[in-house]
Amino acid sequence: MENLLYAVPVIAAVSLVVALLLKSWIGNQDEGNDRMKEIASYIREGAMAFLGREYKMVAIFVAALLVIIGFFISWFSAAAFLVGAIFSVLAGFIGMKTATDANVRTTNAASKNGMPAALKVAFRGGAVMGLCVVGLGLLGVSVIYILCNPNGGIFALESEVFASVLTGFGLGASSVALFGRVGGGIYTKAADVGADLVGKVEAGIPEDDPRNPAVIADNVGDNVGDVAGMGSDLFESYVGSIVSTITLALTIDAVSQVDGSLFPLILAAIGIVASIISVFFVNGKTSNPAKQLNLGTYISSAIVIVAALALSFAFFGDIKAFIAVAIGLVVGVAIGKITEFYTSGDFKPVQEIAKQCETGSATCIISGFATGLTSTVFPLLLIAIGIIGAYYIFGLYGIAIAAVGMLSTTGTVIAVDAYGPISDNAGGIAEMSELPEEVREITDTLDSVGNTTAAVGKGFAVGSAALTALALFVSYSQIANLDKIDLLDPNVVAGLLIGGMLTMLFSALTMNSVGKAANQMIEEVRRQFREFPGIMEGTQKPDYATCVDISTGAALKEMLLPGILAIVCPIAVGLILGTEALGGLLAGALVTGVLMAITMSNAGGAWDNAKKYIENGHNGGKGSEPHKAAVVGDTVGDPFKDTSGPSLNILIKLMTIVSVVFLPLFL
Amino acid sequence: MENLLYAVPVIAAVSLVVALLLKSWIGNQDEGNDRMKEIASYIREGAMAFLGREYKMVAIFVAALLVIIGFFISWFSAAAFLVGAIFSVLAGFIGMKTATDANVRTTNAASKNGMPAALKVAFRGGAVMGLCVVGLGLLGVSVIYILCNPNGGIFALESEVFASVLTGFGLGASSVALFGRVGGGIYTKAADVGADLVGKVEAGIPEDDPRNPAVIADNVGDNVGDVAGMGSDLFESYVGSIVSTITLALTIDAVSQVDGSLFPLILAAIGIVASIISVFFVNGKTSNPAKQLNLGTYISSAIVIVAALALSFAFFGDIKAFIAVAIGLVVGVAIGKITEFYTSGDFKPVQEIAKQCETGSATCIISGFATGLTSTVFPLLLIAIGIIGAYYIFGLYGIAIAAVGMLSTTGTVIAVDAYGPISDNAGGIAEMSELPEEVREITDTLDSVGNTTAAVGKGFAVGSAALTALALFVSYSQIANLDKIDLLDPNVVAGLLIGGMLTMLFSALTMNSVGKAANQMIEEVRRQFREFPGIMEGTQKPDYATCVDISTGAALKEMLLPGILAIVCPIAVGLILGTEALGGLLAGALVTGVLMAITMSNAGGAWDNAKKYIENGHNGGKGSEPHKAAVVGDTVGDPFKDTSGPSLNILIKLMTIVSVVFLPLFL
Repeated sequence: MENLLYAVPVIAAVSLVVALLLKSWIGNQDEGNDRMKEIASYIREGAMAFLGREYKMVAIFVAALLVIIGFFISWFSAAAFLVGAIFSVLAGFIGMKTATDANVRTTNAASKNGMPAALKVAFRGGAVMGLCVVGLGLLGVSVIYILCNPNGGIFALESEVFASVLTGFGLGASSVALFGRVGGGIYTKAADVGADLVGKVEAGIPEDDPRNPAVIADNVGDNVGDVAGMGSDLFESYVGSIVSTITLALTIDAVSQVDGSLFPLILAAIGIVASIISVFFVNGKTSNPAKQLNLGTYISSAIVIVAALALSFAFFGDIKAFIAVAIGLVVGVAIGKITEFYTSGDFKPVQEIAKQCETGSATCIISGFATGLTSTVFPLLLIAIGIIGAYYIFGLYGIAIAAVGMLSTTGTVIAVDAYGPISDNAGGIAEMSELPEEVREITDTLDSVGNTTAAVGKGFAVGSAALTALALFVSYSQIANLDKIDLLDPNVVAGLLIGGMLTMLFSALTMNSVGKAANQMIEEVRRQFREFPGIMEGTQKPDYATCVDISTGAALKEMLLPGILAIVCPIAVGLILGTEALGGLLAGALVTGVLMAITMSNAGGAWDNAKKYIENGHNGGKGSEPHKAAVVGDTVGDPFKDTSGPSLNILIKLMTIVSVVFLPLFL
Repeated sequence: MENLLYAVPVIAAVSLVVALLLKSWIGNQDEGNDRMKEIASYIREGAMAFLGREYKMVAIFVAALLVIIGFFISWFSAAAFLVGAIFSVLAGFIGMKTATDANVRTTNAASKNGMPAALKVAFRGGAVMGLCVVGLGLLGVSVIYILCNPNGGIFALESEVFASVLTGFGLGASSVALFGRVGGGIYTKAADVGADLVGKVEAGIPEDDPRNPAVIADNVGDNVGDVAGMGSDLFESYVGSIVSTITLALTIDAVSQVDGSLFPLILAAIGIVASIISVFFVNGKTSNPAKQLNLGTYISSAIVIVAALALSFAFFGDIKAFIAVAIGLVVGVAIGKITEFYTSGDFKPVQEIAKQCETGSATCIISGFATGLTSTVFPLLLIAIGIIGAYYIFGLYGIAIAAVGMLSTTGTVIAVDAYGPISDNAGGIAEMSELPEEVREITDTLDSVGNTTAAVGKGFAVGSAALTALALFVSYSQIANLDKIDLLDPNVVAGLLIGGMLTMLFSALTMNSVGKAANQMIEEVRRQFREFPGIMEGTQKPDYATCVDISTGAALKEMLLPGILAIVCPIAVGLILGTEALGGLLAGALVTGVLMAITMSNAGGAWDNAKKYIENGHNGGKGSEPHKAAVVGDTVGDPFKDTSGPSLNILIKLMTIVSVVFLPLFL
């Protein structure tokens, strides 16, 4: 089996080659007319400008942490940390560049060749991000493994040092994810709220109207938030789950160190193959986009399931590992479906919120928030049953393997997810380029399917964050050599309370950040309308760049404090109250973080779709009083679902991996 | 020292005698003119009708649980459970009867003798509830102790049976609290939202206008929610903290069984004396109501502090118990003050929310919710530091003693708290009786001070619920003989996740209940306005009774499901996953419950006062667009702060005491 190890980085590299081929295929598609090209270039430049400035900040942050890790932990770990950060940046950069190439080509394909062609372009645009994430993630982990693992690695580091190097790589991924998810989340919602409140509500112009100075920033936001942010989040989960499984394999007796480490690597490699295959099944040959996307998901899941069964027997001689993998996959898919139920206009919860809009915005808010709270019930039960099941099947290792299983199809999940914002952008470009109504109809259909896949993707992101954080938590306890983390120890209870509290604080900070950034945007859009009356008449061009700049600056400034908190708090608790209390903190953050992330994401998604449901002619329809109430709900939901909620995914994983990396300081 | 034991029930009885004397003093005050008497009688009858129907339901619930406890645990415990339930009912009944006598007499005192006299009546009305709660609570516990304790009790039960009897009494208190807090919370907000949405918003008539059919139900709601609900909540905490300390004293080695049990009883008795003394210091001799009420609080705290110092040396020969008591008292007062900071219009957070109302209701909601989340930071840090401090001073016993210390001044706390809704009612009666403007001004002043004391009281209720639940959690672990509750055990993690999830579900259920009940109320008020046009012209009397009836029926129906959940879930987890997992559930519910309770209570309080702040002429003033946005915030906040938030106090205590009582089933 060990010879298979060398196939792992090869497959990872293949994934990157396929990604680059897809990228060049997209580049070869026609961009359409000059107006479309112009608008697309604004969006692309805005997105790249954001990434550029974000990465400058990341560089400073990473440099500081690099020195700290180097001095206090080891320079091996520091180097791995740097590579992890660079790989995450690379995945984000390539993925987003491609997304901003694909959007306009999706519009053009819709206009020239209709829906199936447009679907193909949009999906392939997302697939580049997906394949880059899994390719770079697995390449990094497997090369580190080949170079440094204590059982025959080229440099054969000691077991503890190797674990520290591996988690260092994970921390690099996490640090970039923090900036990607939190910064991207703040950016996208500041632009969205700003564009909506002044453009749609005050000036009365439609969504994506080119006269709105914030419209480009809004479209940029879809890319930096929903493509790059989501990608970095799942990159972190993907790497984190594999890293935690390998480090766990080194410290427990249930599996041999080599088998226990190889299994997740090879499973992940098969997952990549499955993802590549599934990409080519979404080929635009039918005109039902939802069916096509589901097909992709089912194919990659099926391949992984079958392979996992074979691998389970090959490695461990029984079905145990297979069951753990299957538990992870099923929980991931199920949480996605539950999310869809609570956030789609096709089901009762959203329709009930739409009904509550008839008595005003207050009842809309209450009903949506209650829906978000209720939507935690089944995901949490599933996770609880899943970890008990995985544990009884295969001990602590089973929990980690379940996380790897859930994340094995990450390539496909990201492709399906990133397809949404690309289609959304495509619609915006159609609108701004004043293309015929039929084009917009196609992109709207693609976009509405994208909303569902986005909801499913968000559920998957939370579920995978929970399982990954849990797996890392288990690794933490084993590396720290804790035989228990005892809730009867008041330090642990104090840690639990503080961990929970940090979740609330982090949510509040990110929520307020959106508010502050949106206010700046509102002022700017108002200023432009006031000072350049020609904009509204169509004789003057709005100043898009300044709006892009405001969102960028505000997002980067606002993400610093939550970012520092997420790093400093676990270290402080570890130093002051010790490793057991820190375990309590991680558990407290895990339970509260998962609950709040699901609540906020789903409440936000439900409000959004309640508004759309009303716009489709129910409960009074567009422009009615209930619709106005629904708009309030949607606006409240924006930071809930796209900033604070997803940011918590990062918080719980980041705090756990920070704790693992800095463990030597607390012991 | 042991002879002092017999003084405890005597002091408790004295408390009840003083309460009855105050009640009769209030009865002897003049009720005012016929119109006032009539309105007061509507409110009184409505409140009593609610209590009557609530108690019928309580009776069925208690009877069912009685049989279950009798069969599965012991008939001793079942009997104690019954007594606990009856005592809680009694305290609620007397307290609320007095409150509904005191409201109109406060109005009359304001009209005849001015502010100081009105303050005296209102405060004494609240003091009856306060003294009944502590008197009946301590009477029950001390008599059970004298009869059954294993070290010289009259029947000298075995240690385990005795603990079961004592916690049975606590469960009785908890069960009634569930109905009182949850049912009362649903009632009061259904009526409030219904009265406001149709009366104030649709019909444009002022608050407390007698033409509003829901106005009596609204005033009844103040009594059943803020007086009876709050009283039953603190009755539960009060009893729970003493019960957990005594049961802990029986199982740990740090203190002798007798000393460890006597200390909380005598401390509580001194707390009652302090409360009685403080009641007579609030005598209406100055015209600054806030000063008077603070004086009462400070005097009772000072007496308890001094007595605790003496008791600490007398019982244990050192200062340790004193420090634990002081920690509890300080944490309780500090959480109250923090609550005030986040919810009062005098400070930045509420003013910032008012500013956010200028950009509409969505930003108002986001900003208020973020404020609620932020307001968890210092209370949680205080509780964390408090339990670590209390533990390092005096072990697990120290944590329990800190809870008793915090709750020792409960008599005064309730008096100060219940004074608020009585003043609020007094204002309503003044408005409905068309008394001169000056009378309403006096009651408004009293009411606005009452809003602050209510916020402080809510903070205290959450803090005391947290410490009591924690103390009961410790007792649980000791009685279950658990040497650890290990977060590395997947069952415990699953329990933790389920416990947190139950918090969210419970919040959602109570929130939705308010919505459903309020909708019924809205329909009814609209129907009356439609069918009897004379109401608005003042020629026809609205049908108050039907509105009262709707609130009552809806509240009682809606509280069943959450109530059953709170009892069944811990039992199910204990049976299926075992005692350690149940410990995890309790910890998960504790951390999430405290966080959500603080978030929702304070967000609600902050929205409420942001609206009042705007009404006082800031950010556009009454009737402006920002004011409308603030009204939306206030309406969303209503179920947050008066239903779901406070209901979580009950949930975390009730689930813990259910776990203690039913422990024998899981072992």
